[in-house]
Amino acid sequence: MNTYRSTTLKLILLFVGMALVSACSPPAEKEAAQPADSRAAVDLIIAGDYVISMDATGDVIKNGAVAVKDGFIIDVGTESDINKSYAATETLPGAGRIVMPGLINGHTHAAMTLLRGVADDLALMDWLNNYIFPAEVEFVDADFVRIGTELACWEMIRGGTTTFVDMYYFPDTIAQVVESCGLRSLIATTVIDQRSPDAENADDALRKGIEFIKRWKGKNNRIMPIFGPHADYTLNGEQLKAVRAAAIDLDVPISIHLSESPYEINYSKETYGMTSIDFMESIGFFDGPTIAAHVVWPTAEEIPILVKRKVGVIHNPTSNMKIASGISPVTEMLAAGVYMGLGTDGAASNNDLDMWEEMRLAALLQKVDQMNPEALPATAVLRMATSGGAEAIGLGDQIGALTKGLRADLIQVSFDDVHFVPTYDVLSHLVYVADEQDVASVVVDGKVLMRDHKILTIDTERVRREANELAGRIQAALAAKNKS
Amino acid sequence: MNTYRSTTLKLILLFVGMALVSACSPPAEKEAAQPADSRAAVDLIIAGDYVISMDATGDVIKNGAVAVKDGFIIDVGTESDINKSYAATETLPGAGRIVMPGLINGHTHAAMTLLRGVADDLALMDWLNNYIFPAEVEFVDADFVRIGTELACWEMIRGGTTTFVDMYYFPDTIAQVVESCGLRSLIATTVIDQRSPDAENADDALRKGIEFIKRWKGKNNRIMPIFGPHADYTLNGEQLKAVRAAAIDLDVPISIHLSESPYEINYSKETYGMTSIDFMESIGFFDGPTIAAHVVWPTAEEIPILVKRKVGVIHNPTSNMKIASGISPVTEMLAAGVYMGLGTDGAASNNDLDMWEEMRLAALLQKVDQMNPEALPATAVLRMATSGGAEAIGLGDQIGALTKGLRADLIQVSFDDVHFVPTYDVLSHLVYVADEQDVASVVVDGKVLMRDHKILTIDTERVRREANELAGRIQAALAAKNKS
Repeated sequence: MNTYRSTTLKLILLFVGMALVSACSPPAEKEAAQPADSRAAVDLIIAGDYVISMDATGDVIKNGAVAVKDGFIIDVGTESDINKSYAATETLPGAGRIVMPGLINGHTHAAMTLLRGVADDLALMDWLNNYIFPAEVEFVDADFVRIGTELACWEMIRGGTTTFVDMYYFPDTIAQVVESCGLRSLIATTVIDQRSPDAENADDALRKGIEFIKRWKGKNNRIMPIFGPHADYTLNGEQLKAVRAAAIDLDVPISIHLSESPYEINYSKETYGMTSIDFMESIGFFDGPTIAAHVVWPTAEEIPILVKRKVGVIHNPTSNMKIASGISPVTEMLAAGVYMGLGTDGAASNNDLDMWEEMRLAALLQKVDQMNPEALPATAVLRMATSGGAEAIGLGDQIGALTKGLRADLIQVSFDDVHFVPTYDVLSHLVYVADEQDVASVVVDGKVLMRDHKILTIDTERVRREANELAGRIQAALAAKNKS
Repeated sequence: MNTYRSTTLKLILLFVGMALVSACSPPAEKEAAQPADSRAAVDLIIAGDYVISMDATGDVIKNGAVAVKDGFIIDVGTESDINKSYAATETLPGAGRIVMPGLINGHTHAAMTLLRGVADDLALMDWLNNYIFPAEVEFVDADFVRIGTELACWEMIRGGTTTFVDMYYFPDTIAQVVESCGLRSLIATTVIDQRSPDAENADDALRKGIEFIKRWKGKNNRIMPIFGPHADYTLNGEQLKAVRAAAIDLDVPISIHLSESPYEINYSKETYGMTSIDFMESIGFFDGPTIAAHVVWPTAEEIPILVKRKVGVIHNPTSNMKIASGISPVTEMLAAGVYMGLGTDGAASNNDLDMWEEMRLAALLQKVDQMNPEALPATAVLRMATSGGAEAIGLGDQIGALTKGLRADLIQVSFDDVHFVPTYDVLSHLVYVADEQDVASVVVDGKVLMRDHKILTIDTERVRREANELAGRIQAALAAKNKS
């Protein structure tokens, strides 16, 4: 009887265990394809109730899927056709989800997430001189950049950004973080004519930048080291020409702040006798590929220069509004044929890295500025955040659309949140409703970086702890400084 | 042995059941206070790492709490002081949370959530004549209003709105939904001089409105029936005066669209020989309490009228941008002393009911419009969404701040999302970063409507199903109409 009881008990305890597991676990995923399968083997199939191509056709496939192999998109079609042709090692099921290209953040200073909200609602010079510059001088070192960039990558992956154009200090550290977290990035090594956290002056920054680019160019297809001369008011003409010469020599593009604020335009007029874009053209700065951030104040004569020189323009509506830089003539530039993308700028002037909000704000701001509700429709801003942004940063032949042969950078957006109910038009919902928190899964170069809202490539709790600890020290230091 | 086994089995199965319950349930709540407790009994204690009073003191209490009894706030202080003085039946623990007054959405058309995204990026007349009006004529009945209002209340509770000023048709149905879901609402019965979904013309609407107000006035402190004459371009002077006379007679305020668009201003000038606010003043329309939505185009001479007549102005930045109505002179009106709140307008022109976005957009839009980053700081827009909004809708002595004696309308916002890391300034984060999805718990009149992101007073899956079904029929009908 004892044995019997013991066996009964064991069986029942086994049942308890199984019941606990089955009651508390999510439903198991479907099995991967059978080995005897005649279908072509692929690494990943990503499905969605809607698959938004963002390619030239503008196709939206209902109940679609994307097949991925070796980091590339090898097919896009209906889910049933894709499942007939391909057997995948890994799948991202599509119920209640939209599949679309990953978002391209064309201008940010990732590590500055560590300074988000440190000082808001201040006049530009007070903000810069009493908060941002002192914090940077005292605290920006390789460790700050590592923690800040990890924090930014966490937020960007969470929100569906797959590529970002960064401009900050300690670019090797940025590249290491990007290499590890799996995002795609153009990393601009900052060149500025003042003592910075990682260089003595412009010459020193340029020299170090050249070495950085040589170290990283061609090493990893996700990491493109480029130059980031700061602006025409922080570098003189000779310095700007020297950076361009080095960029041509190393065959890399340049990212720069351009025509951002009334301050810059006045400075340029007083110093060079012309506005910023005219000045840049006059010194041959546009002789190589250029990604120009902001471009709030181009004159009617300067817009054709941007078109002719194929300058990619990155619109940053939140930052332009928050720092009161002005309203960029986005619709005029698009109509003229300028390549245009979107960016968040750094989180210190935003205060997040939410590309959904940039899309929404871009559309809303153009409408009220033009007093025309048809200005910059949802499809146009979605293009700026994906395929258009890819063109603007010089990667139009590699990313930005769900097209066979492009690199597999794509996301799934859940649309089961109450703010999507009901859904008449998914494109409209993506622009006028979606939040960072709706993004469910993120794939870059065929690798899943976030699955069902879980980040797979960053130790987020460590980053949170390190960021909070460092921010505590920064806050104490600024409080002491601004008291004295 | 059989009996023994049976008993053992029963005990073990009981254990299985208990194990399942204990493994799958969230941690049990702390026990309510002991009967022998000398502390005063309260219904609810809501704690937070930060408690933001939004009262005249502007106090932010670290590790604070609010004690609630019989629907009122009876004390606010540090968590340890509150716990020393009060024993609560129910608690909302505060780790990682901010406690603040519930948000006040000063202008919306709740049921129009059913039309969100049905038609975007269109010229106003195309939008109205080919989409909104046809959909309303064909589909708006009591059932549409019930489902749409439930959907809106779900979204508003989820996003931290505790009071809304509504203006739509079938106000009895709206009142029933509000009664059941637990929100607070001023429900404006629409008066418009055309055939509407619930009336033949302005006279009929006014007659029905009077009956509605008589039915609901004083019935439930959360439900305030009021009049909603649509605008000065959809009602003539005599009709507007008749509505005001009825409002004075019944002692209720009025909500109206005012000075919203260039169209309205031109209409008013051509029809009445003066701009809208001047015209309203000339007919004595402001002789009773008025909640004016939009007010985008007040002249310098009209702003003092708003101050003198204590007109509450509701700013709707998303709608004003999306429909291209213009940029409201919010900072001028605030400086002049106008009572100002914020609203989302209906979801058909927004396309959600997200008050966080309205706060952020209000701040950003004023800064760029004024070319001044100090314009409309975070604290000012937080005030517009809480205590200022309460004043603007005539409830400043009842809600809008965490002050002893006010009604207990308050929310908890989680700040553990990555976009809040690090946190230097909670007020800044609430305006420049927070989303609807960060709101964790919502209390109205002392009753918990959402706890840890779970809505307690609405059958959300039924509402989702009904909304999707109705939207499917609307979409099919509009497609057929716009094809023919």
